[in-house]
Amino acid sequence: MSGALTRISQLEAQLSQTSEVGEWGGDNGRKVWRTELSPVSLLRRTAALHPNRCAFIVAGNNNATCDYAEFARRVKQLAIALERKAGVIKGESVAVLMPNSNVILEAHFAVPLAGAVLVCINTRLTQREVEYILKKSKSRVLLVDASLMHLTVNWKSCGVRVIIPCEDAYGLPTAHLDRYEQFLGDCSKLAVKSDWSDFPPLKSEDDSIAINFTSGTTGNPKGVVTHYRGAYLNALCLAVEMQLTCETNYLWTLPMFHASGWCFPWAVSAVGGTHTLLRKIDYPTIWNLFINNRITHYCAAPTVQLAIVNYESAVAFTDRKITTMVAAAPPSPTLLEALLKLGIHPIHVYGLTETYGPCTVCTWQPEWHSLPLHELAEKLSRQGHTFLAGDETIIVDFETGQPVPSDGITLGEVCFSGNLVMKGYLDDESATREAFRGGVFHTGDVAVKHPDGYIELKDRSKDIIISGGENISTIEIENAVMTHDRVLECCVVSTPDEAWGERPVVYLTLKRQNVNAAGDEAFVVELLAFLKGLLAGFKMPVRVNVVAELPKTSTGKIQKFILREAEWKNFGGSNGGRKGKLIN
Amino acid sequence: MSGALTRISQLEAQLSQTSEVGEWGGDNGRKVWRTELSPVSLLRRTAALHPNRCAFIVAGNNNATCDYAEFARRVKQLAIALERKAGVIKGESVAVLMPNSNVILEAHFAVPLAGAVLVCINTRLTQREVEYILKKSKSRVLLVDASLMHLTVNWKSCGVRVIIPCEDAYGLPTAHLDRYEQFLGDCSKLAVKSDWSDFPPLKSEDDSIAINFTSGTTGNPKGVVTHYRGAYLNALCLAVEMQLTCETNYLWTLPMFHASGWCFPWAVSAVGGTHTLLRKIDYPTIWNLFINNRITHYCAAPTVQLAIVNYESAVAFTDRKITTMVAAAPPSPTLLEALLKLGIHPIHVYGLTETYGPCTVCTWQPEWHSLPLHELAEKLSRQGHTFLAGDETIIVDFETGQPVPSDGITLGEVCFSGNLVMKGYLDDESATREAFRGGVFHTGDVAVKHPDGYIELKDRSKDIIISGGENISTIEIENAVMTHDRVLECCVVSTPDEAWGERPVVYLTLKRQNVNAAGDEAFVVELLAFLKGLLAGFKMPVRVNVVAELPKTSTGKIQKFILREAEWKNFGGSNGGRKGKLIN
Repeated sequence: MSGALTRISQLEAQLSQTSEVGEWGGDNGRKVWRTELSPVSLLRRTAALHPNRCAFIVAGNNNATCDYAEFARRVKQLAIALERKAGVIKGESVAVLMPNSNVILEAHFAVPLAGAVLVCINTRLTQREVEYILKKSKSRVLLVDASLMHLTVNWKSCGVRVIIPCEDAYGLPTAHLDRYEQFLGDCSKLAVKSDWSDFPPLKSEDDSIAINFTSGTTGNPKGVVTHYRGAYLNALCLAVEMQLTCETNYLWTLPMFHASGWCFPWAVSAVGGTHTLLRKIDYPTIWNLFINNRITHYCAAPTVQLAIVNYESAVAFTDRKITTMVAAAPPSPTLLEALLKLGIHPIHVYGLTETYGPCTVCTWQPEWHSLPLHELAEKLSRQGHTFLAGDETIIVDFETGQPVPSDGITLGEVCFSGNLVMKGYLDDESATREAFRGGVFHTGDVAVKHPDGYIELKDRSKDIIISGGENISTIEIENAVMTHDRVLECCVVSTPDEAWGERPVVYLTLKRQNVNAAGDEAFVVELLAFLKGLLAGFKMPVRVNVVAELPKTSTGKIQKFILREAEWKNFGGSNGGRKGKLIN
Repeated sequence: MSGALTRISQLEAQLSQTSEVGEWGGDNGRKVWRTELSPVSLLRRTAALHPNRCAFIVAGNNNATCDYAEFARRVKQLAIALERKAGVIKGESVAVLMPNSNVILEAHFAVPLAGAVLVCINTRLTQREVEYILKKSKSRVLLVDASLMHLTVNWKSCGVRVIIPCEDAYGLPTAHLDRYEQFLGDCSKLAVKSDWSDFPPLKSEDDSIAINFTSGTTGNPKGVVTHYRGAYLNALCLAVEMQLTCETNYLWTLPMFHASGWCFPWAVSAVGGTHTLLRKIDYPTIWNLFINNRITHYCAAPTVQLAIVNYESAVAFTDRKITTMVAAAPPSPTLLEALLKLGIHPIHVYGLTETYGPCTVCTWQPEWHSLPLHELAEKLSRQGHTFLAGDETIIVDFETGQPVPSDGITLGEVCFSGNLVMKGYLDDESATREAFRGGVFHTGDVAVKHPDGYIELKDRSKDIIISGGENISTIEIENAVMTHDRVLECCVVSTPDEAWGERPVVYLTLKRQNVNAAGDEAFVVELLAFLKGLLAGFKMPVRVNVVAELPKTSTGKIQKFILREAEWKNFGGSNGGRKGKLIN
C-alpha cells in the first residue's frame, strides 16, 4: 500500500507543473495565452485579411483564379467532406497523388484541418512504389489525378477506403464537375456556415502533420513524419528569408509533393501571396509566366534552373527582381552567375525531406553586392546557416562525432537538431535511432564549415572519392567542369584504380547548340587541359564520358549511384577496395 | 488497494503521451526535433552569421559602436556576472532602471540567458513607484543609471541584494570603466571561453521571461508577466511585418523599458540589424540621425510622431524609405497624412503591455497606394488584424460577451487570445481572472470591426461618452479636431450635462507658430463652426479649452482621467449620473 502511495505521489509530482503566475486558463480550461502552432491558422488569418486577393491561378489549363475567401471555403469543404463523406477520423492518413494543382494545395490545409495526416506521393514513382506508400502510410482516402489512375488500380488491396479521381476542373462550368468537385460540392452549404472554430482543435503542435516519402536511391522509400510546429515555424522562416508579402506571385515550378512543397503552400498563403500553379515543367510557359504574369518568386533544383537560364528566349530582367530559392543539389558557381546575369536573385538554400525541405540559407551579406560576379557566385554556392527557427548546423567528425573546426577544410557530416527536424521515420525505429544517434539528425551529407560559419557541402558521404587516402569532393570537380562554356550538366563518380583505390571519372552532357560541334574526343582533350588549370593533380579525372542524358531520380536529382555502379560492376559492387595512399 | 491502483493507472494514462513515431530523443533524452523557443537563440544565430555587422551605436554620447561578435560576448559576460558575482539563480528577477542604452539592450538577452526574469522599470516613475516595483517583483539585482540613483536610495530595504550603478561608459577607454563595465570586465575571460551551450538550457518556453509594469492611471502598477514563446513569436512577426533585414538601422525613439521595447530588442537582433540607441528624445538629434545615419526604421507614439513631423527643419525623403510603427494611442488621419507627405511609411500597430506591445497591424493593401492621401490616411488610422502568430482579434458585446457584427458601427470590447497574450498579472490572481474571463484577454478598449475585418478603436471603455443613451467615441471627435490646421494635440472628455447626462468637451494645444496668432476666443468660434461640418449634432463639443499643455503619463500618453476628473469634481466623482435619452 505504501509503495502504491509513493508511486502516486511520484506520478502526481511529474504531472504538477511548476505553479507560476497566470498558469490558469479561461472558463473552458484552455490557456488564454497559448494556441498550438498550426499552418492552418495562417490561412484562417489571410482569408480574413485578404479575402479578395488571388490565392491561386491554375496556369496553362484554363488560368482560372480563386481568391482567398473562396479558397478558404473550399478548404473547409474538403475538410468537411473528408470527415462526413469519407469518414476520416483524427490521425488517419489521406494520400494525394497529383501534380501541382489546386487539389494538392487545398489538401495542404484541409487534411490538417480535418485532423488527418497528409501523404503526398511523388507522381513519377512506379505502381509498385505507390502501392508500397499507400500501404505503409495506412492511407484511407486517396485523391488521385485522372491521368495517374493506372498507378493505383489496386487501391482497395492497399487499404484505401475511398478514392477520388480528380481532373483539372477548377473554374470550369458546373457541368464539367469531376469527382473531386462533386465531393466538395455536396458540402458547400455546410462550409459556408462553418467557422474555423467548428473544426476539431489541434491538441498538440507536436502532432504529425504529414508523411513525406524520400525518393530513396535503393530499397523502399522511408516515410518522413513531420509535425505541425516545424511546418509552421519553417513557413515563417521562409516569409522572412524570401521577403514574402501579399504582392508575392509564387510560381510552382517545384513539385508540391516534394517535402510538403518545401513548406511554401503554407508560407505563401501566410502572407496572402498568389500561388501560380504549374502542372508540368515547361520552359516556354515558365518564361511566359515570368514575363506576362509578373512572377516574383519561384523555387527549383539546379537541373531546372540550368534549363531556365539556358532557354533560348531567356531575357534579362531590368525593371524588377525575380527571387529564386535554389536547392535539392548544390548549384555550381557557373549556374549562380548565369542567374545573376539574368537579374534573377538566387537564394541558395539546403535541406532534406527530413528537415521540411530547406532549413539553411546562404544569407547575402550586403558587402557581396560589390564583388565581381564570379566571386559573388563562389560565396553564394555555399549552403550557409540554419534558418532562424532551427538550432545551429553542426558538422561532426565521422569518427569522433565531435564538431570539426571552422576552417573551410576539415570534412565532416552535416547534422541538425531542433524545431526544423522531422519526428522520425514512419514505423522504423531502428532507422530513426540511427539517424538521431548522439542527439542530432545525421544527414549523410559531407561538408566543411568556413571561418564565417557558412557551411559548404562537399558530397554525400556515399559519393565522396577516397583516392590514395585523400578525400576528393565530387562536387568540387563538378563545379570545375561546369565552368566550361559547352557543358550543360555533369556528374563525377569514383572508378576503381589499382594504385589509388579510387579515382574520379566525369559524365557530362553538352549544351544543345554544342552537341553537334567538334567531335567528343577533341572536346575531351580540350576539357582535360582546361581542368588542369583548376584542379590539383590527384583530383584530375581519369576519364570523361560525354553522354546524351544523365540518369535522374523522379525529383530531378542526378543518380550518381547508377553511374558509380556501372563503374564498379566488375569489381564486386560499388566502392570495393579502398586502398593505396597518395604520395605527393 | 484497488483504489490506489486505479489512481496509478489513471495517472500513468495521463503521463503516457500518445505513442507516435519518433517520440524518442537522442542519447541525452532530449527530443532531437524540439528546441524551446527563446529570443536568446536569435542572438546566438546572428553572432554566428553577422559577427562583424554593427549591433548597436550609442548615439549622442560618444557614438561608440559594437559589432555582433562583441555584443554576444558582452551578453555572455553579463549573464556570467549575474550568476557568479551577483548570485542570481534561475527564476529570480533582475531589475533595470535605465534609459535606452547598451546596458538595457544587453540585459534583454543576458538576463534570460542567466535563467532570470527581466524587470525593466520606467525611468519617469517616482521613487515610491520604483520602490513598489522592486519589492513586488522581488528583484535581487538592480542595474541603475547613475542619473537615476536618487530613485533607488532605499534599494536594500526593497530586497535588492546587488546594485550596479551604470554610466554610458561603453566605448570609452578602460580608465573610464564604471561599475557596470567592471562588473562585466571581471568575467571577460570566462565569456570568451564560454559557448552558448554552457548556459543552463531553457526548460520550457512557457517560462516567464519578463515582468513589465503597466503605467496604471490609478492605483499601483500591475506586473505583466510574459513568456519566452510569446516574446520569440512576436519578434518573428515584427521581422515579417516591418520587413527587417541585416540592413535595417533601427532608431530607438521608443523607450526600451516600455513593454520589452515592443520586442524590438529581439526582432532587430534576429536579423542582424543595427540598434541606434537614443538616450533621450531630442528632435534635432532624431532628424540628424534620420538623414546622416541613414535610419531605416523607428517606432513612436503619436505624440512623438507629431513633434517629428512638425519639426521646423523636417524635410521629405525622396531617395529612400523610412518605415515607422506608430502605436500607444490611435494616430489621427491628420498625423498619418503628415508622415506620408514626408516619405515616412507608417505602419499602424496596436497592442498593450499585456500583449507584448503591438499585436495587431493595419496591413497596407496594395490598392491603397492609389487612393487620395486623406482616404489612405483614413484606412491607415484603423488598428487592423492580429499579427500572424496570434489568434484572430475579437470584439465582444459588453453585456453578452458575444462577438459583435463586422459592420463598422457596433461597439464592443477588444479581446485577444493565444500566443501573444501575457501569462497574467504578477501575484494578482483576481485581476488576472477578471482580465481573462470567458477565456479571452479583455483589453478595456472599445472598438468596431469593419466589414473588411480591420478593427478600429473608438475609445477606452472608461473614456467613452454616453450622451442621451448614445455612445460617443472621444477618438472620433479628436480626429475631427485634429484635421484643423492650427491644432497640435487634443483630448476629448465628458462633462456633466443636466439634459443628456454627459456631453463632450475639447482640450487642445496649438501648433507653435499659431499660439500667438488671433485670440483663443475667436479661434474657438472658428473651430466650432469647422466641426459642425464634420460631426453629427449630438457629438458636438459643448466647450473648447485651449491650453498650453496636456497632462501626459510617463510614456507620453495623454491622461484623459485627469481632465475628466476636473470636469466632474463638483458632481461627485467622474462620470456621475448617466441619464437622459437623445431624441432625434
